[in-house]
Amino acid sequence: MKIAVLGTGEVGRRLATKLASLGHEVAIGSRTADNAEAVKWAGEYGGGHGTFAGVAGPAELVVNATGGLVSLAVLRSVGADRLRGKVLLDVSNGLDFSEGFPPKVVTPDGASVAEQLQHAFSETRVVKSLNTMTNTVMVEPGRVPGHHNVFLSGDDEDAKAVVAGLLGSFGWAPDRILDLGDLTSARATEQLVQLWLRLYGMLGTGDFNFSVVTAPAPAA
Amino acid sequence: MKIAVLGTGEVGRRLATKLASLGHEVAIGSRTADNAEAVKWAGEYGGGHGTFAGVAGPAELVVNATGGLVSLAVLRSVGADRLRGKVLLDVSNGLDFSEGFPPKVVTPDGASVAEQLQHAFSETRVVKSLNTMTNTVMVEPGRVPGHHNVFLSGDDEDAKAVVAGLLGSFGWAPDRILDLGDLTSARATEQLVQLWLRLYGMLGTGDFNFSVVTAPAPAA
Repeated sequence: MKIAVLGTGEVGRRLATKLASLGHEVAIGSRTADNAEAVKWAGEYGGGHGTFAGVAGPAELVVNATGGLVSLAVLRSVGADRLRGKVLLDVSNGLDFSEGFPPKVVTPDGASVAEQLQHAFSETRVVKSLNTMTNTVMVEPGRVPGHHNVFLSGDDEDAKAVVAGLLGSFGWAPDRILDLGDLTSARATEQLVQLWLRLYGMLGTGDFNFSVVTAPAPAA
Repeated sequence: MKIAVLGTGEVGRRLATKLASLGHEVAIGSRTADNAEAVKWAGEYGGGHGTFAGVAGPAELVVNATGGLVSLAVLRSVGADRLRGKVLLDVSNGLDFSEGFPPKVVTPDGASVAEQLQHAFSETRVVKSLNTMTNTVMVEPGRVPGHHNVFLSGDDEDAKAVVAGLLGSFGWAPDRILDLGDLTSARATEQLVQLWLRLYGMLGTGDFNFSVVTAPAPAA
């Protein structure tokens, strides 16, 4: 698949690298066409690079790995035409570090970054996922042993199936992928990041994840 | 220990029953002295009942099992004098059902119910815990098999130790109790309830809990 990854930070590069290793045609996008990280990444992994708009235009699927506080502005610079009909996998979180650690988790309009993007680009199919764990675990769930989960939120079932397929190729078994329902459920996972940040501070590592542990159904 | 449980709903009665079964002297409090649920509970389990102020006054430890949206008003009816120096175990969540299910999770002043209470009663030692699971699991963690966690937030270490002791007596092994730090961390667990509510809707049961799964430390 032709995939654009918006954002050249650690999350964007990690996802781009994994997607490229799986055989996808990946280009990494940034504010400027010659971002040093993007050029370096493209050289190292045989991918493309360019502006946000430049890489999103030809892509079939777009990954939003920009900071959640700037994502709307980034996508506006891409424009609705270049995003129309496409799946937008949003892995962002709205983190405000202005008052130190832990950052404040900002949820636009009392809702979520994902809904803000969906509202602004109504013909794009936004799926929220992967935003509840560190980037290394996103692409290699086996780093954390045992059972743990990744969440999925979105209004478009086909788009969620596409993302679930990508998650599967990353190593997430189907029973690990919890579909929480429509995109309003992204509020829950974006807020879960508050707990993630506390645990990160407490454990001193990001190599952990959340698991939903259920009781077996009572015998009939 | 002499314990007052404020709130005669399912959560309050469940906690009061467990505490009484463990040998504590428990009284259950409500708005009126002759609340039918409280009278029934007291008759059945040999406990006391009375107004919020009436049961909190003689208690050594107070459990807030009222709805988070009314907790501040409830505690104001008790008064600072009756709460001074005491441990207040706050298990509440601020759930607004006015727009249906899932309810909106309300966090006063953009923070948490727990901090709101601590701010209003500065000489009381507020500890947030148990608010991230259904009441049956609170008092019987073995209902959900395997490893899963209960969180603890509070500014007073001694008060947290008292609550951790109670949790232990409920069946929570020490390695299941995750102390997230000061009371600002209650924001994270109160917001976690958003995810709990989505999962409850999806799973159709409250018999589940969250587990924090960590990777083993790398070999030296």
